[in-house]
Amino acid sequence: MMKKMIVASTSTIYGGKYLEYLIPQLRVHFRSAHKLLFIPYARPGGISYEAYTDRVKKGLKELPLLVKGIHEFEDPREAIHAAEAIFSGGGNTFVLMDTLIRQGLMPALQDVILQGTPYLGTSAGSNIVGPSVKTTNDMPIVLPDTLSSLNLLPFNINPHYLDPVPESKHKGETRETRIKEFHAYNKEIVIGLREGSWIAVNGDEMILKGNLQARIFKKGESPFEFESGRDLRVLLHTKT
Amino acid sequence: MMKKMIVASTSTIYGGKYLEYLIPQLRVHFRSAHKLLFIPYARPGGISYEAYTDRVKKGLKELPLLVKGIHEFEDPREAIHAAEAIFSGGGNTFVLMDTLIRQGLMPALQDVILQGTPYLGTSAGSNIVGPSVKTTNDMPIVLPDTLSSLNLLPFNINPHYLDPVPESKHKGETRETRIKEFHAYNKEIVIGLREGSWIAVNGDEMILKGNLQARIFKKGESPFEFESGRDLRVLLHTKT
Repeated sequence: MMKKMIVASTSTIYGGKYLEYLIPQLRVHFRSAHKLLFIPYARPGGISYEAYTDRVKKGLKELPLLVKGIHEFEDPREAIHAAEAIFSGGGNTFVLMDTLIRQGLMPALQDVILQGTPYLGTSAGSNIVGPSVKTTNDMPIVLPDTLSSLNLLPFNINPHYLDPVPESKHKGETRETRIKEFHAYNKEIVIGLREGSWIAVNGDEMILKGNLQARIFKKGESPFEFESGRDLRVLLHTKT
Repeated sequence: MMKKMIVASTSTIYGGKYLEYLIPQLRVHFRSAHKLLFIPYARPGGISYEAYTDRVKKGLKELPLLVKGIHEFEDPREAIHAAEAIFSGGGNTFVLMDTLIRQGLMPALQDVILQGTPYLGTSAGSNIVGPSVKTTNDMPIVLPDTLSSLNLLPFNINPHYLDPVPESKHKGETRETRIKEFHAYNKEIVIGLREGSWIAVNGDEMILKGNLQARIFKKGESPFEFESGRDLRVLLHTKT
C-alpha cells in the first residue's frame, strides 16, 4: 500500500459551497471507501464537533460515503485504525494539534496514512501533514506540547497563501515576510498553497493541482512560482 | 512609582517613517531618561540585532536619547534593572517570547516596569504586556515554553487589527473569527488595536490614544467599538 493524500489549501473557494470544488477529486480519492471518519477537532470559529460534522455531511452528500465524526466513537484511536478514509477539516491548527496530541492520536494517524488509508486535509488539516505546523496562519489560542506534526510530506504547508498587496496601507507583516522569519529558524521548504490549489500525493508522487501556481520558499533563496501539474519532488533534488 | 507604558499597535503607519507618528508622545514619555534600552529580540524579517538597533537609533534621532541594544550588554538582566527606559520592538512574538524566557528576563522586565521604568512596546512588544500572547498574528516559527506573558495590562492585545473586508474573495479566517476562536478557550478581553492606535498606561489609567477607535472583544458578547480618549478600565467593570 502507499500514501494517498489530498492536501488542500482551503475547504471552500470564493463563490463556491463547502468542499464543492473538490468533489470530482474526492469521488476518485475515496472510491474504495464506504465510510469516512471526520476529525472536527480544529473547530473553526469555535463551533461544536456535531455542527462541524453536519457541515461535512452536507458538503459531501453527493458522494456515497457515510460520514461519522471521531467524537462519536468511544475509542478514537481504534476509530482511526478501523477507518476506510479520513478527513481532517480546517479551523485552528493549535487546537487541532493539541487535541490530537492529548488523545495520543498522532502515531495512529501516521500509521494508517502510511499504510494507504486515503486522507483529505484542508487548511489546518493540511498543516498537520508536514514536518511541523510552524507555518500556520492561526492564532496560538492554546499551546500544544510540540509543533512537530505528521511528517508525511517533506514540505511545510502555508495554506490560504496570500500574495502581498502592493497598494496595501497595512503595515503588519506580509505572508512572505512571515515565511522569511520562519527560515531564520527552520530549514524546511514551504509551499505557499493558494486557495483552489491542492497537492495530490500518491506514494512518492506529489503533484500540485488546481488552476493556480504555488509560491515556493526555500531558505536563503528568493521565493519563486511553481506550475500546477508538476511533481513537487523536483524541489528536493534541484538547486533552483 | 507607577507603571508608564505606551502600548502601540504598530511602529509605523502608512506613509510615515519608522516610529515617526509616536515621536511627540515619546518626547514626553521618555523625558526623564537619557538612555534607552532597546530589545531587538523579535527580529522582524529575521534581521540582525545590530541592524534592528540601528533602525531604532535612526527613528529616534530627534530625541535626546542614547539608544543601546540589550545584546550589547554582558548581563542582559542587569541591563534591564539599570535601564532608564525600555523599548521592545515588533517582529515575531514567538521569537521575542522564547528569547526573553530562555534568558530569564521576564521577571526582570515585570519588576522594572511595575517600578516605573517607562516602557514602549510596538506590535510584538505590545503583545507581551498582556496576560498572554495568544492573540498575536505571528507565525509560531519557534515554540516558547509558555505563552503567558508580562500581565502588566489586564487585556490581550491584537496588534495591527484589521477589519473584515466585505468584498474579499479570501476564505482564510478573518481576524474577528480568530479572536472568536480564542474566546472558545480563553476568557481575557481582547483589544483589537488598529494601526495608529496606542494605549497610554499611567498607573491604573489606560487611555486609548490615536485617531481611531479600537475593536473590543469580550467572551460571549458581540464585538463593539471603543472611542479614542476613553479609559479602558471601564471594560473591566461594566456589562456593555
